[in-house]
Amino acid sequence: MIETPYLLFLGDAPDQLAAKVAIGIKDWRPENAVGQLRMDGCKADLGLADMTLQDAKAAGAKTLVIGVANRGGVISQAWKKVLVMALEEGFDLASGLHNLLRDEADLVAVAEACGRSLHDVRVPEVDYPIANGVKRRGKRCLAVGTDCSVGKMYTALAMDREMRERGMKSTFRATGQTGILITGDGVPLDAVIADFMAGSVEWLTPDNDDDHWDLIEGQGSLFHVSYSGVTMALIHGGQPDALILSHEPTREHMRGLPDYTPPSLEALRDTALTLAQVGNPDCKVVGISVNTQHMGETEAAQYLAQLEADMGLPATDPFRFGAGKLVDALAAV
Amino acid sequence: MIETPYLLFLGDAPDQLAAKVAIGIKDWRPENAVGQLRMDGCKADLGLADMTLQDAKAAGAKTLVIGVANRGGVISQAWKKVLVMALEEGFDLASGLHNLLRDEADLVAVAEACGRSLHDVRVPEVDYPIANGVKRRGKRCLAVGTDCSVGKMYTALAMDREMRERGMKSTFRATGQTGILITGDGVPLDAVIADFMAGSVEWLTPDNDDDHWDLIEGQGSLFHVSYSGVTMALIHGGQPDALILSHEPTREHMRGLPDYTPPSLEALRDTALTLAQVGNPDCKVVGISVNTQHMGETEAAQYLAQLEADMGLPATDPFRFGAGKLVDALAAV
Repeated sequence: MIETPYLLFLGDAPDQLAAKVAIGIKDWRPENAVGQLRMDGCKADLGLADMTLQDAKAAGAKTLVIGVANRGGVISQAWKKVLVMALEEGFDLASGLHNLLRDEADLVAVAEACGRSLHDVRVPEVDYPIANGVKRRGKRCLAVGTDCSVGKMYTALAMDREMRERGMKSTFRATGQTGILITGDGVPLDAVIADFMAGSVEWLTPDNDDDHWDLIEGQGSLFHVSYSGVTMALIHGGQPDALILSHEPTREHMRGLPDYTPPSLEALRDTALTLAQVGNPDCKVVGISVNTQHMGETEAAQYLAQLEADMGLPATDPFRFGAGKLVDALAAV
Repeated sequence: MIETPYLLFLGDAPDQLAAKVAIGIKDWRPENAVGQLRMDGCKADLGLADMTLQDAKAAGAKTLVIGVANRGGVISQAWKKVLVMALEEGFDLASGLHNLLRDEADLVAVAEACGRSLHDVRVPEVDYPIANGVKRRGKRCLAVGTDCSVGKMYTALAMDREMRERGMKSTFRATGQTGILITGDGVPLDAVIADFMAGSVEWLTPDNDDDHWDLIEGQGSLFHVSYSGVTMALIHGGQPDALILSHEPTREHMRGLPDYTPPSLEALRDTALTLAQVGNPDCKVVGISVNTQHMGETEAAQYLAQLEADMGLPATDPFRFGAGKLVDALAAV
């Protein structure tokens, strides 16, 4: 569990895209983002107040989050100066970088001396149990994709926001590094040991109120041969009551796999539902979330209308047109 | 890669069952088993020559394999005396125990001093790649089960033996600790990090001769919610050309999951084949392997005959009636 709120560290980001994680935090949990800290030459800007460490401390920030991809895969000396000062000022550090904070001897030493924590969200910090398959109270929704990176996380976050606005009980359950940094906790599922994957998802989505929904962040795809095992563990560990199908219609091949064609939404529906009903016989497919970013607005609207007619399910791009239809479908479960 | 042949260490095994791993080695790779080493009070007996460390060394043994479950989950001082002497005599040590050899400071120190290796087969020793899904040459067969522990490893080992006897090209590919100790190498799949599961199976089953079969040891079940992700990674990383359905007909619930009923063989066939054809569109279900240990001989034969009629596939208990039918089916692919 990472202490919030955050000061978002943008370092010397070469462009806006490099600050993807910080943008996610600011978009989805603005209450967690007290301000931004930019170094000389930083080309990214979140539109938040620029703060010194002292300003942010005074404003209540607890953790300095590295919200930017680092250059060359290493934590530079220029960054180190800021990170060490942050620890000395009483901040914890959190990062999703491949280059782990805990592998930097100086950061470890300073953190220990100052009594601060280093959170590498790529690395599990919990000894997860083996899944026991016992039915839990409360409801769970999982987005499953025709491919990786089709918008499963944004779908869950958009639904969570809409549900909160409606006064429904919901919790976004992060299973990847960006989601964990956005919310402050979760399971870095792709880094969990095989035997404990499903158990970590059970741990993440425990008993809850009967009318509470966990919106579980999806990962991978049953049809992506590199990562399908992770998706399978989400389906069985998550015991979803509702599945959302996630799709990106313009993709010509599976991400990173030039010889593999994405499946049809019908194939995804049938395969995912069959497997989900092993863990929860009442599971239903309730809607479709489409990433239409590569389509014009009219084209996207027409595509969604046709999809609704073909599949008999509500279909929307929750980022572009709102998650209302998908939340209506959950409310009807 | 563990150096063979082995001296099989039975310690102070309380009964024959405790020596399961050693029995597996002796049954399936007798050429790897030079002899057995038993301590005072040992109640297990493989029927191999009892040897001192010196005898076994003279007979060519390279590795002392702990072929027995330890009492209380710890490596006892009585065992330690033998293990330390073995290192000093020039043996490597190999173990599948939860209590890792590498966590015992004295064993580590002696191994280093003697230049010997400690193999904990529960722990991956390779940095596996992420799966790339590229089609490999050669053929692969995978047993998929209605449940865990229904005989998938024995099926693959029995087929491998039959194929060697027929002069066919085959390799048993171990994915669990017992299989790894039997053959000397493999992937401890349940201990691999989620993102690298399918890649580790690709690594285990590389390009080979067009008429060579990898017989991949199955794990878990698509219908076992605790471990289905591991099974999924085997199906997609293994790119099987042939699936064998494995079943234990008298089981009333899924292993360790009292609320879960095993699926029908039809459901297993349809789900596994759909998923396998994502990675290999030419994959076929070629036969059924049944563990009939809880049935009388006549009952078992009748059950298998009925199954063949119902499913239109060859069905046998490879341990009881031989793997010939299953190998015939592979030869016809």
